[in-house]
Amino acid sequence: MNDRVERLRAGLEEPLLVSDPANVRYLSGLASSNAALLVEPDRLRLFTDFRYAESARAIDGVELVETKRDLFQTLGELLSGRIGFEATSLTYERHARLHAGGVELVPRYGLVEELRVVKDEDELAAIRRAAEITDVAFERFADEGRLVGQTERELAWRMEQLLHDADGDSISFPVVVASGPNGAKPHTVPGGRRVGRGETVIVDAGCMVDGYCSDCTRTFATGQLRDELMRAYEVCLDAQQAGLAALRPGASGPGVDSAARDRIDAAGFGEAFGHGLGHGVGLLVHEDPRLAQESHHTLAAGNVVTVEPGIYLPGLGGIRIEDLVVVKDGEPEVLSRFTKDLLTLD
Amino acid sequence: MNDRVERLRAGLEEPLLVSDPANVRYLSGLASSNAALLVEPDRLRLFTDFRYAESARAIDGVELVETKRDLFQTLGELLSGRIGFEATSLTYERHARLHAGGVELVPRYGLVEELRVVKDEDELAAIRRAAEITDVAFERFADEGRLVGQTERELAWRMEQLLHDADGDSISFPVVVASGPNGAKPHTVPGGRRVGRGETVIVDAGCMVDGYCSDCTRTFATGQLRDELMRAYEVCLDAQQAGLAALRPGASGPGVDSAARDRIDAAGFGEAFGHGLGHGVGLLVHEDPRLAQESHHTLAAGNVVTVEPGIYLPGLGGIRIEDLVVVKDGEPEVLSRFTKDLLTLD
Repeated sequence: MNDRVERLRAGLEEPLLVSDPANVRYLSGLASSNAALLVEPDRLRLFTDFRYAESARAIDGVELVETKRDLFQTLGELLSGRIGFEATSLTYERHARLHAGGVELVPRYGLVEELRVVKDEDELAAIRRAAEITDVAFERFADEGRLVGQTERELAWRMEQLLHDADGDSISFPVVVASGPNGAKPHTVPGGRRVGRGETVIVDAGCMVDGYCSDCTRTFATGQLRDELMRAYEVCLDAQQAGLAALRPGASGPGVDSAARDRIDAAGFGEAFGHGLGHGVGLLVHEDPRLAQESHHTLAAGNVVTVEPGIYLPGLGGIRIEDLVVVKDGEPEVLSRFTKDLLTLD
Repeated sequence: MNDRVERLRAGLEEPLLVSDPANVRYLSGLASSNAALLVEPDRLRLFTDFRYAESARAIDGVELVETKRDLFQTLGELLSGRIGFEATSLTYERHARLHAGGVELVPRYGLVEELRVVKDEDELAAIRRAAEITDVAFERFADEGRLVGQTERELAWRMEQLLHDADGDSISFPVVVASGPNGAKPHTVPGGRRVGRGETVIVDAGCMVDGYCSDCTRTFATGQLRDELMRAYEVCLDAQQAGLAALRPGASGPGVDSAARDRIDAAGFGEAFGHGLGHGVGLLVHEDPRLAQESHHTLAAGNVVTVEPGIYLPGLGGIRIEDLVVVKDGEPEVLSRFTKDLLTLD
């Protein structure tokens, strides 16, 4: 029986119905939009429909129960007794249907997510490979230059092609390219704006390998930047390095966030850094642990997180510098190797 | 005030908290992973965090309430009284938090989805454009030929590039390329298998335009097919045309499914058609109405659906032919124009 399931079982007070797709994949290996896993002390049943049945049958140590497309109808007919469920994932309607079917449901929170935060060697290997591919794509993107006059959308697509050519399975999220004043907006979709001279261009991209994500951001310049943007870049890089230095087992999410944020505050850019410092990365590109003031997490060896301070100056431009990092006893392992020196491309 | 919100209001018994992202987008125009809309008789409040605040502020006729990243914490503090919620979308945990905050919650089902099934002219224009782009991509894919010896993954990426080059905003789902025996598996991810001679190759692809999806499948041959596959292609095409002919306002989901399925059953391939005939397409690539035996839907003019019978012969190969179609009074409007004649590519 697999080790992940054993560790989960050790903490269960009653059988757990795992229905979150990333959690099902983590425990069973099955990638499916319609599957659930019932973890009992001495049984492990995987419920899914005919589309995934062949893949599910090939998995060692689970009993496959092939269901209708309406998975929760089958579950409602089959389950009984006291069963835990994933409260942050199960919808009200599905809960109500199981409840009406006589199941005694116990809300449980983050039981599988707690395991997922500490990556094992197989997971780290996939994430390292995804980060290497992303480095290669950034290298080629920078080598090609030719930013000025291209649209953000064209550049985002170019980055996506480079990630594919470097052997990424797919992108881990839509590539962000935010140029000039657009760089100061926190959530921009790459559009028809053409990159001009003397601007910053934020490029935020990642890929997937064997289901695991990478995530990296660099900010380029197109010619000489205004003094305020130059200073913001230096402050952002300094804050990013302070964040990296604070990454160690036992550090708190708010503590690491503060290590970077204090530098930005001290430089007078505090108002311009409107998001948390980072987030966990794994099967999902945004997962626990969070590095932010509202975080309740404490870091542990094997966590994989981003460290990505940003400085956003309305009307002027934005800076963000993001590395993907493995928390370790001692020095953290920075997976993003592409230079953080400010590169000027034309 | 916008017409969609007015139509929704006309059917409400109490204020409705809309939290499903596609429903929020449909009613307000805001594309966000963290937003909710409270629809009251004389107010319309849009809740979202700072990342989407600038976009939200630009929307006419809504009051923006900027929230923390934890949107439901803010909602729990602000809401009171009797409020409907979307039971198939809201998680147990979010429901529990609002309930604990003293809100009297009423589960509601499909109120916005009921409106979304009938597309208006703006929506149809986006879907038509997405279907045209998909046709162009299929034309170029067929013109290029060169299937034999390429991997499914390479061909899927080529199709994605063609969709981008033809001006799709993005793909509407990961491109499916399933060749030879892989074509008989209902849910295959394009992999390292190289296409051989005398096989079928299923290509299922679509793109997005202004948030709306297209969806089209064609099956190609690489050289002479075995008689059983040839016959399966003819039966599948005949069934597809029978499905199209049955599409009219007032027809039932099971009825349209049967119109196609009966042809496949009669030809002796009934066991080989293991999924429903089709699904609605709009902001999501799979939405209501469903064309399947388990469907409770009745078609109406303005529905946009796929008609996609398949015949899957284990060990041998698969056939699927899929058009995107607008249901109309009189003849349906078939948006997918790429030929359904069996094309032989090398």
